Amino acid sequence: MTLGEYVTHQQHRIDAALERWVPSESTMPESIHKAMRYSLFAGGKRIRPILCLAAAEAVSDATAGIESAACTLELVHTYSLIHDDLPALDNDDLRRGLPTCHKVFGDAIAILAGDALLTLAFQVLAQMDCPAERKVAIIEDLSTSAGTVGGMIGGQVCDIEGEGQPPNAALLETIHRAKTGALLRASLRMGGIYAGADREQLDALSCYGEHVGLAFQIVDDVLDVEQSSEALGKTAGKDAQQHKITFPAVYGLERSRVMAEEQRKAAHSALRPFHGRGERLRELADFIVQRRA
Amino acid sequence: MTLGEYVTHQQHRIDAALERWVPSESTMPESIHKAMRYSLFAGGKRIRPILCLAAAEAVSDATAGIESAACTLELVHTYSLIHDDLPALDNDDLRRGLPTCHKVFGDAIAILAGDALLTLAFQVLAQMDCPAERKVAIIEDLSTSAGTVGGMIGGQVCDIEGEGQPPNAALLETIHRAKTGALLRASLRMGGIYAGADREQLDALSCYGEHVGLAFQIVDDVLDVEQSSEALGKTAGKDAQQHKITFPAVYGLERSRVMAEEQRKAAHSALRPFHGRGERLRELADFIVQRRA
Repeated sequence: MTLGEYVTHQQHRIDAALERWVPSESTMPESIHKAMRYSLFAGGKRIRPILCLAAAEAVSDATAGIESAACTLELVHTYSLIHDDLPALDNDDLRRGLPTCHKVFGDAIAILAGDALLTLAFQVLAQMDCPAERKVAIIEDLSTSAGTVGGMIGGQVCDIEGEGQPPNAALLETIHRAKTGALLRASLRMGGIYAGADREQLDALSCYGEHVGLAFQIVDDVLDVEQSSEALGKTAGKDAQQHKITFPAVYGLERSRVMAEEQRKAAHSALRPFHGRGERLRELADFIVQRRA
Repeated sequence: MTLGEYVTHQQHRIDAALERWVPSESTMPESIHKAMRYSLFAGGKRIRPILCLAAAEAVSDATAGIESAACTLELVHTYSLIHDDLPALDNDDLRRGLPTCHKVFGDAIAILAGDALLTLAFQVLAQMDCPAERKVAIIEDLSTSAGTVGGMIGGQVCDIEGEGQPPNAALLETIHRAKTGALLRASLRMGGIYAGADREQLDALSCYGEHVGLAFQIVDDVLDVEQSSEALGKTAGKDAQQHKITFPAVYGLERSRVMAEEQRKAAHSALRPFHGRGERLRELADFIVQRRA
C-alpha cells in the first residue's frame, strides 16, 4: 500500500467509527446531532486518528477495535475548532471550505455541539472494547492533553491573550506545545497505550509526537502566509491580521521552513526503537511537513 | 448530626476536594483558572455531590476517597451553568447573587472555562483512587447523563427550542428528565457504583434519583415564580419572561406543589431496600422539596 492508499484506508476506518458512535441526524433533538455531524464530516484530514492507528501498528498486531479510540481524537479536535471559530473567540466564518458551525446553526447550538462532542469522546472511551486499565490510562492522558495546564485549552487561552504582544520565541513555544502539540502527542500515546506499549515504546511515541506536533504547527503557520483561503479551505492570512504569534512572525519564513525540516528528522530519529515497524510513522512525518494545505 | 450539620460537613468535604483538584489561581494561564474557581466557589449548594456521598453511605462504609468522584458532579454542573448563562444561550447576568462568569471574564474565557471544567471532571475520574472497572462505569454513566441523547445537553437544546411553544406536559417531561434529571440521577448512581452497589441497590438509587430530580425541578420552577431575585441569587421570573415551559405554566402553582410532594413520597419509597441506611437520603429528599431558594 502506498502512503496515499494507507491514508485513504485509515480515513475510511475512522469515518466508519464516527458514523457508528455519533447519533444519527434523525436522533432527537435533531439540531444538535446535525450540527455535530456537519462539523465532523466536513472533510477533516483525520491526521490525529491516523497517527493513533499508525502508533498502535508500530507496537503490536493486536489492535482490533482501535478505531473507536482513534475517532475520539477527531471528536475532541472538532469540538475545539467549533469553539475556536465562535465570534467570541477567533470569529471565523470559513472552515475546511465551508461556513463554520455557528454560521449554519447559530451560536447557541454551536456552543452545545462543541460541548457534546467533548462529552461523547469520553463516553466512547468508556464504552469501547478494551481492558479497563487501558481505558483509564487513555482517558487520563487525553483529558490532561485537552486541559488547561500545558494542554489544548491552556494553549488557546495563551494564544488569545498573546494577540498583539510582540513576537517572542518563548511564548510561541508555550502556545504551540499546549494548543496543538499536546493533543498530537496524545494521539500517538493513545495508540501506544491501546496496543499495550511498554515504557520505552511509549516514551519514543511521545518524543515522535512532540517533534511531529511542532513540525505540524510550523507548517500550518507557513501555509497561512503562503497559501490562498481557497487552497486552505479556511481564511488565509488570518494570523497576521489578528497579530497572532506565529513561527514566520518570530523566525521569518525561510528559517521556519528549516525548522520544520529539523523537526521531521528528529521525529524520524525518535522511531529507532520500532525498527521496520515505524515505517508508516516515518512516512506520516514526511507527509505532514510536505503538505500544501 | 442534624441534617443541617450533615450538609455543612459534606459541603466542606466537597470544597476541599475541589480545592485539591482545580489548579490554583496562580497556575498559568491564570485567567482561565481564576474564571473556573470564580464560578466553582460562588456559593453553590453542592446538592449533586452531597447526594452522591449519601448514596455511597447508604451502600457501604468503605467510601474513602469518594469526595474526588463527587466533586466532578460540581465541575460538570458548573460548566453547564457557565455555558447556559452565555449571551448566546440564556443571557443571564446574575448567578448565585454574583455577576455571571462571562460578565466578569468575558465570553471567550467563559466558554473556555466551561470546556475546562468538563474536561477536568474526566481527568479527576481517571486519576482518583478507585478500581479501574468502577472508574470506567462512572465515566460511562456521567458522560451519557451529560450528553445529547436523554442527557443534559439534549435537555438544554429542547429547552431552547421549546421557548415560545405552547406549554405541554410531554415536552416538559422530556426537557426536565434530560436537562436536570439525568445528572441528578447520575449523582446517586455515581455514589452507588463507587461504593460497590449491587444491581438491586443501583436500581433503587436510580429510581430515587429520578423522583428527587423531578421534585427538584418542580420546586425550582415554583421558586422562580414565587421568590425574589434577591432570595434566589439569580434573576427571578426569567422563565415566564423567556416563555420557558415550566411546571407552573403547564399545571399551575397549586398542582405543581402537590406534584413535588408526590415525588418526595415516591423517592422515600424507592429507598426501602436500604432500610435504616437510607435515612440521610430520605432527609435530603425532604430538604430538596422544602427549600426556599
